[in-house]
Amino acid sequence: MKIVETAGEMQEYSESLRRKGRRIAFVPTMGYLHPGHLRLLEEGKKRGDCSVLSIYVNPTQFGPQEDLDKYPRDFDRDEKCAAGVGCDIIFYPSSAQMYPEHYQTYITVEEVSNNLCGLSRPGHFRGVATVCAKLFNIVKPHAAIFGKKDFQQLTVIRRMVKDLNMDLEIVGIPTVREADGLAMSSRNTYLKDYERESALSLCKSLKLAAGLYDKGEQHTAVIIERVETFIRTHSHTAIDYVSICDTTTMKDIGEIEGEAVLALAVRVGATRLIDNHVFGEPIDW
Amino acid sequence: MKIVETAGEMQEYSESLRRKGRRIAFVPTMGYLHPGHLRLLEEGKKRGDCSVLSIYVNPTQFGPQEDLDKYPRDFDRDEKCAAGVGCDIIFYPSSAQMYPEHYQTYITVEEVSNNLCGLSRPGHFRGVATVCAKLFNIVKPHAAIFGKKDFQQLTVIRRMVKDLNMDLEIVGIPTVREADGLAMSSRNTYLKDYERESALSLCKSLKLAAGLYDKGEQHTAVIIERVETFIRTHSHTAIDYVSICDTTTMKDIGEIEGEAVLALAVRVGATRLIDNHVFGEPIDW
Repeated sequence: MKIVETAGEMQEYSESLRRKGRRIAFVPTMGYLHPGHLRLLEEGKKRGDCSVLSIYVNPTQFGPQEDLDKYPRDFDRDEKCAAGVGCDIIFYPSSAQMYPEHYQTYITVEEVSNNLCGLSRPGHFRGVATVCAKLFNIVKPHAAIFGKKDFQQLTVIRRMVKDLNMDLEIVGIPTVREADGLAMSSRNTYLKDYERESALSLCKSLKLAAGLYDKGEQHTAVIIERVETFIRTHSHTAIDYVSICDTTTMKDIGEIEGEAVLALAVRVGATRLIDNHVFGEPIDW
Repeated sequence: MKIVETAGEMQEYSESLRRKGRRIAFVPTMGYLHPGHLRLLEEGKKRGDCSVLSIYVNPTQFGPQEDLDKYPRDFDRDEKCAAGVGCDIIFYPSSAQMYPEHYQTYITVEEVSNNLCGLSRPGHFRGVATVCAKLFNIVKPHAAIFGKKDFQQLTVIRRMVKDLNMDLEIVGIPTVREADGLAMSSRNTYLKDYERESALSLCKSLKLAAGLYDKGEQHTAVIIERVETFIRTHSHTAIDYVSICDTTTMKDIGEIEGEAVLALAVRVGATRLIDNHVFGEPIDW
């Protein structure tokens, strides 16, 4: 496994692979890898001749009051995990590489960024879109693989790729969960033991909502009310949002007709967790 | 010469050229070609095995009160001109291709877009940066060639390319002028005969400024005052701006020390013209 730290070296290597007709599959991450990330890398192995993992805790997607400084980092452990699933290259740039002095260019994906996490975290998706565009230009992948846990992020990136004519395929992979249903996240390490049961209120409430939908409930206000009530019965929880949106526009809807997603963000103690469920898709937890 | 109208076809063709190790040189234009454009295409022929010209009057870089509808267009003439200098491909997309329904992604290059034309034409450089990023992703060039007449545009694009790690070279070519010094522009066709002499006040005032600088004048206020007074002696003129800026930051400066540009925008009758001079570079008109 090769470790590359500069954009120039990565571009040169990717370009040489492309000239040989090799397919590059790319998994961008902020590191502190968990089995969800490894699932993305495995998918990358299937979809490319060369799999590239990037590890970069991107400051432009964190707000001033957020957890940039305490975000968990462990490169040695990540390196071993990535090697274990046969990753070919880790791209591991510094912030001096990514945002040198006088940096001033940002990409905004307007409508789909506005709701949900875009409301709670102003500038977050601008940072995500910008760093992904940079990474795509550096790694030059044929396919990039993202988890569906960050549903709105995936929607923003798909939209950017389409709008800016970026010539790569975006692949979304179902959320990987712990045995008890908790969606895998590097931020789960923040949870205290006594908060774990409350953290499960997210995935359990999705199951509750799926059950209501399966019984014919299409009024989103009814489903949202039941979900919020359920989450509030758990201690240490503070709801950021519970929304049901059209999956293309990411706008709130009143009735579930086309493809719709229930997305939620809940603070459990000091930890902000997100999860989601697309109505009609299987619930396997 | 091949004419390509869809992004998909262009990408496929460019990708096949790149796999064969061919170099692609790209000249993005809004058409209505003049000798300045042809000079860019000639430079493209030198710098690539395949030269691509794009012709697209990009609506997102025009303000609501601007000349989008009356901007001159003549594809048949452009086709003949391009063939005449050995252009290999014209990329000629429709707006339905470039900005389909639900389009919502924009690129902002912040500091260097703020001054000069960025002040007079809000959103202009956002539109320019966005369409250039799209065209670069479609045409996949190794080099893209721009005229220095649009000095701030060139600065914005260079900054975007650097910031977003786009893997191509941006080449700036000196302004091509009429025999009398008027900078070539598709908008010169708007000028009435009796406005021509006034239009020359732009290039003549640059010469005047260069003369002052050569004699040791470094105070920008002094130079700007002389330039403005000179332009005002011509009828039908209304100054939009006369500025002396640092060429890296595009911010106004008080003294000429590092590399500095005198940039000006003047309305001559109903036609807005721009021109510029980098102090120390030759004046050949």
